[in-house]
Amino acid sequence: MIKAGIIGSTGYAGAEIVRILMRHPEAEIVWFGSRSYKDMPYASVFRNMTNIVDAECMGENMDELADAVDVIFTATPQGLCASLVNEEILSKVKIIDLSADFRIKDVAVYEKWYGITHPSPSYINEAVYGLCEINRKDIAGARLIANPGCYTTCSILSSYPLVKEGLIDPDTLIIDAKSGTSGAGRGAKVANLYCEVNESIKAYGVTSHRHTPEIEEQLGYAAGREILVNFTPHLVPMNRGILATSYASLMPGVTADQVQQAYEKYYGNEYFIRLLPQGELPETRWVEGSNYVDIGWKIDPRTNRIVILGALDNLVKGAAGQAVQNMNILFGLDEKTGIDFVPVFP
Amino acid sequence: MIKAGIIGSTGYAGAEIVRILMRHPEAEIVWFGSRSYKDMPYASVFRNMTNIVDAECMGENMDELADAVDVIFTATPQGLCASLVNEEILSKVKIIDLSADFRIKDVAVYEKWYGITHPSPSYINEAVYGLCEINRKDIAGARLIANPGCYTTCSILSSYPLVKEGLIDPDTLIIDAKSGTSGAGRGAKVANLYCEVNESIKAYGVTSHRHTPEIEEQLGYAAGREILVNFTPHLVPMNRGILATSYASLMPGVTADQVQQAYEKYYGNEYFIRLLPQGELPETRWVEGSNYVDIGWKIDPRTNRIVILGALDNLVKGAAGQAVQNMNILFGLDEKTGIDFVPVFP
Amino acid sequence: MIKAGIIGSTGYAGAEIVRILMRHPEAEIVWFGSRSYKDMPYASVFRNMTNIVDAECMGENMDELADAVDVIFTATPQGLCASLVNEEILSKVKIIDLSADFRIKDVAVYEKWYGITHPSPSYINEAVYGLCEINRKDIAGARLIANPGCYTTCSILSSYPLVKEGLIDPDTLIIDAKSGTSGAGRGAKVANLYCEVNESIKAYGVTSHRHTPEIEEQLGYAAGREILVNFTPHLVPMNRGILATSYASLMPGVTADQVQQAYEKYYGNEYFIRLLPQGELPETRWVEGSNYVDIGWKIDPRTNRIVILGALDNLVKGAAGQAVQNMNILFGLDEKTGIDFVPVFP
Amino acid sequence: MIKAGIIGSTGYAGAEIVRILMRHPEAEIVWFGSRSYKDMPYASVFRNMTNIVDAECMGENMDELADAVDVIFTATPQGLCASLVNEEILSKVKIIDLSADFRIKDVAVYEKWYGITHPSPSYINEAVYGLCEINRKDIAGARLIANPGCYTTCSILSSYPLVKEGLIDPDTLIIDAKSGTSGAGRGAKVANLYCEVNESIKAYGVTSHRHTPEIEEQLGYAAGREILVNFTPHLVPMNRGILATSYASLMPGVTADQVQQAYEKYYGNEYFIRLLPQGELPETRWVEGSNYVDIGWKIDPRTNRIVILGALDNLVKGAAGQAVQNMNILFGLDEKTGIDFVPVFP
Repeated sequence: MIKAGIIGSTGYAGAEIVRILMRHPEAEIVWFGSRSYKDMPYASVFRNMTNIVDAECMGENMDELADAVDVIFTATPQGLCASLVNEEILSKVKIIDLSADFRIKDVAVYEKWYGITHPSPSYINEAVYGLCEINRKDIAGARLIANPGCYTTCSILSSYPLVKEGLIDPDTLIIDAKSGTSGAGRGAKVANLYCEVNESIKAYGVTSHRHTPEIEEQLGYAAGREILVNFTPHLVPMNRGILATSYASLMPGVTADQVQQAYEKYYGNEYFIRLLPQGELPETRWVEGSNYVDIGWKIDPRTNRIVILGALDNLVKGAAGQAVQNMNILFGLDEKTGIDFVPVFP
Repeated sequence: MIKAGIIGSTGYAGAEIVRILMRHPEAEIVWFGSRSYKDMPYASVFRNMTNIVDAECMGENMDELADAVDVIFTATPQGLCASLVNEEILSKVKIIDLSADFRIKDVAVYEKWYGITHPSPSYINEAVYGLCEINRKDIAGARLIANPGCYTTCSILSSYPLVKEGLIDPDTLIIDAKSGTSGAGRGAKVANLYCEVNESIKAYGVTSHRHTPEIEEQLGYAAGREILVNFTPHLVPMNRGILATSYASLMPGVTADQVQQAYEKYYGNEYFIRLLPQGELPETRWVEGSNYVDIGWKIDPRTNRIVILGALDNLVKGAAGQAVQNMNILFGLDEKTGIDFVPVFP
Repeated sequence: MIKAGIIGSTGYAGAEIVRILMRHPEAEIVWFGSRSYKDMPYASVFRNMTNIVDAECMGENMDELADAVDVIFTATPQGLCASLVNEEILSKVKIIDLSADFRIKDVAVYEKWYGITHPSPSYINEAVYGLCEINRKDIAGARLIANPGCYTTCSILSSYPLVKEGLIDPDTLIIDAKSGTSGAGRGAKVANLYCEVNESIKAYGVTSHRHTPEIEEQLGYAAGREILVNFTPHLVPMNRGILATSYASLMPGVTADQVQQAYEKYYGNEYFIRLLPQGELPETRWVEGSNYVDIGWKIDPRTNRIVILGALDNLVKGAAGQAVQNMNILFGLDEKTGIDFVPVFP
Repeated sequence: MIKAGIIGSTGYAGAEIVRILMRHPEAEIVWFGSRSYKDMPYASVFRNMTNIVDAECMGENMDELADAVDVIFTATPQGLCASLVNEEILSKVKIIDLSADFRIKDVAVYEKWYGITHPSPSYINEAVYGLCEINRKDIAGARLIANPGCYTTCSILSSYPLVKEGLIDPDTLIIDAKSGTSGAGRGAKVANLYCEVNESIKAYGVTSHRHTPEIEEQLGYAAGREILVNFTPHLVPMNRGILATSYASLMPGVTADQVQQAYEKYYGNEYFIRLLPQGELPETRWVEGSNYVDIGWKIDPRTNRIVILGALDNLVKGAAGQAVQNMNILFGLDEKTGIDFVPVFP
């Protein structure tokens, strides 16, 4: 059994790792870290875990943790994982960081968008961006995984084959994304109260959301050059789910067949990416609770743009599910182990 | 592998059986029956099943089905299962009926509350009421299971130990229940449109809901005599979940300790019933997606009444999960097999 | 024009008073009090008020306020209004207190249920319980109005005629109430976050909710003696609305006609109470945004109990609307002035 | 008093006209038309109207109606109004058509996107596109008003000043719009059931939604030439509200000041358009129940695109409110009469 520790186990993403690992046949959680709820029974914080988790929340001593476990998941605010990691720890355990600390290779870009000084820039290069379907091989041998963001997983996977194959002009890419409210975290803020979110939709982080440079960097690799995109997230009155609607101009002469072939080339054999039949488009309800990403698209011949729709569950494929998928790859397990959920509907 | 067929696989309860059985290690579905969507790919009706279910919907020929499978689930309107079942079929397969056809032993009561003539009253006595925690032994040897209703499972389990032990006066029992909207089914009705249900709560079936006699019969067995209760269901703007708030007068001199001991006596070893710690009360969010029933209670010393709260997921323990639990018992499997879900939150 | 001041104008109830008074033809707000948002533009806190309210939030100096206005609404936590009120203030302005400070005549009962020492018990007797349809005459001449609670308005009005006429046994009264989440206030608490409330229903304050003694006192007046009831509130995933489901045993021989006549006797001419046609029951969607209370009922001849349903908008008739209705009475206006809203649906 | 008749009064838009006109000081409804609910009490269909509307639903005989009223609102499916209108009727009454029949001047474009033959193309030229803030003068003298669509009102108003002033390249315009579910109508369809819409977001009508040519025509007038845009609507789990997120490339050298001045030039004196302070962006919760359109924007200097956000209530400014605004203009009333609602929050 893989022994796992979680730093930040009482946020929504951390709790989803708990939900998944409690039924993972090859892993067990031995450390439920939580700064806010230290010494409280985990099941008193997340009462769905009554009779399932007996443990109490523990502190976040990474040195001690590194001796106790095989893999550490950090589901914590920006900067924390980077401030804790060091050579000794990395020599003992695998780290899967769900924060943004190691996602962006250019530390100046990271520091500009996140407004903090990176505490351990020396590990940025070593870290592997854990977008499983794209970087599977590099993930397998890594010590430190930068688990992708929820919006970015959805956004990048949606258009990756088209950028990679040069079928769209990446500088025309506009991503209009919509997320359920669990993405806003479990902090007690007026803006996230039920009555403030319910019966409303809003954009936020317009032109300034931190997932923008992450998308630009990864799609830039695919394009072979730097690109700039517009990314606009929206808050939707639902618990889970991200829908990304992406717009881009097709390169001259590109046909629907070419688009279809590109998607099949990259994703045709991917278990967790479902290319929908022509004419069907993703909806978040069809992926809820699962690790799937659903992708569909339409070409507008009038404007020669393609509209690409991608949908995933922000807490599963957008966070905890992909983190466990990375764990499975790191430890040589079948990638689906413990995350092969059928989407829950309704 | 147990071969299963589902009649009515494209309702919400039927689809939940599909969701569960597609990952059940000892069962497989070989017949997806649906009158409404016959010959259509199942995954085109429930698109969460894309890449998971390849089959097309089939008709509802029970004779043919009986030759093809080991167990038939009927998730159909009242009267259908009773009109199809016969000795030859029962000699070949187990039937787990999610409708009310075989739940009520007194055919006159059934016909009065349901307003239809029972097509096969001769099988009522044979049928076992599939409330697993209460009737486990009888279920094991049955051919025909009457799977309990969603409200009734929650209502009966909530107060069963207190009625059985004579700690409350059953004639004072008032059950005020609240259900998510999946309980209203997938039929296209104005009353169930999003805008009609959202931002509202209502009672329905007041003094006349058909789950009333089912509750009265089962709790009457526990009481050892006929009882009458008030049962009022309400429709709540959420997808899943039932919360039953039950009120009853304590018998003279009954103490909190006696109440606690009664619950522990009957449920202390039950995996799927979680007796909450004193002071905690159930909420539907903590059981969503799981087969658990959570139970908590408070005594009001001023009025000498007990208020009992029970919560479950109406599509799992209230329908499909309990149906599979019954299947597990019928086929000698560990009762938890394939239904040991961690509740999904948020 | 009546000059109005609001202490606590940035809570949900306070903001609803603002919404109503900004279109009231005979009143204007000259003081938007808010401890939390002092000196901030009101419209930056409640952005629906952009271009409608120009004022900034002011402090809560009641002495200064008493010189500036004709009526003060206090929409504040328990104990605040009672700690500010004095003879000089009452000699200058009318006070409509939306907190519970002056609702309960027996100060010992208040202090027991609220757990605080009452700061000004001498005004309790003078205060008039502002349930307009019951106490209209006393309200007209009052200086200090105790505006009823949201649950209590719904609960008391639902069964008042039956208690008053002796048609039900008040000691059998059980009130199971369900409220939208705006009733929980705008404080930043984890329990009220969108993802915690959405897709769930729960009871709270079971056997201990503070609206219990308020209901008991008022219905006790109707009964002519002390009574005890069970009152259980529930939190529903919707913004607005309260539905109260009340159960009581009919006195021997009471008929449906007598029940109907009792409701008509007390409410037949009440504009804001709608007695629904026989067979129809209230739903919160039909009263949202309005000052109406809808009432319907059914008798269960099997158990000889009556089930009474009442619905209102907790922020309007349950708080701000009734407060303005009280203001209208206090100042001799037509009671409907400025609050004659058509319910908003959907 | 203006006598008004409504054809299609039992859809959501028709019912919202009823809600508004029942409190309009200068108008009264004398004909509640409804094909589906003919001869039923209106208040039995929309029970929020209990005690408010006494009338029964009437048929849709437009000739008879033309003799009885001063203005007819048609809130009906495409093609109906165009099939009923004729010279005699127009000589007697004003018609405000909420369908798309007379919105598009090019009948070929109409017939292509709507897939029906236009029954009365001769009136298309006469009809005035009732976008009040843009076409106020033409509306005043019209006989036949084509009331704009919900998405189109929001989309056109959002970018009109920038197109008109040549500050953006209209061919780069991409509009990603999100709507509450009341926009889908009150028809009984599985896709609009509570459990199908709740907890999900989806795009629909991608590259083919009928509001596209309406937006293109109106913004084309502003641009002085034909333009093509991408318009993508999404369904959001909420009752009311539209948020349109528009993306366009700024023309070379355009500054934020120029953008601000353009908005102020066209909307600075408009009562129902609220230009938000710099840094604030619209959210649908702040306009719910009102006739306001809120507009805000941000420039992304990295991509030289502007992101414009517009929000309105689809049933008010997007349908019934604007229809009454048009009525007010047609009859020489203050434009705000009867529609000056404060937004309802929460």
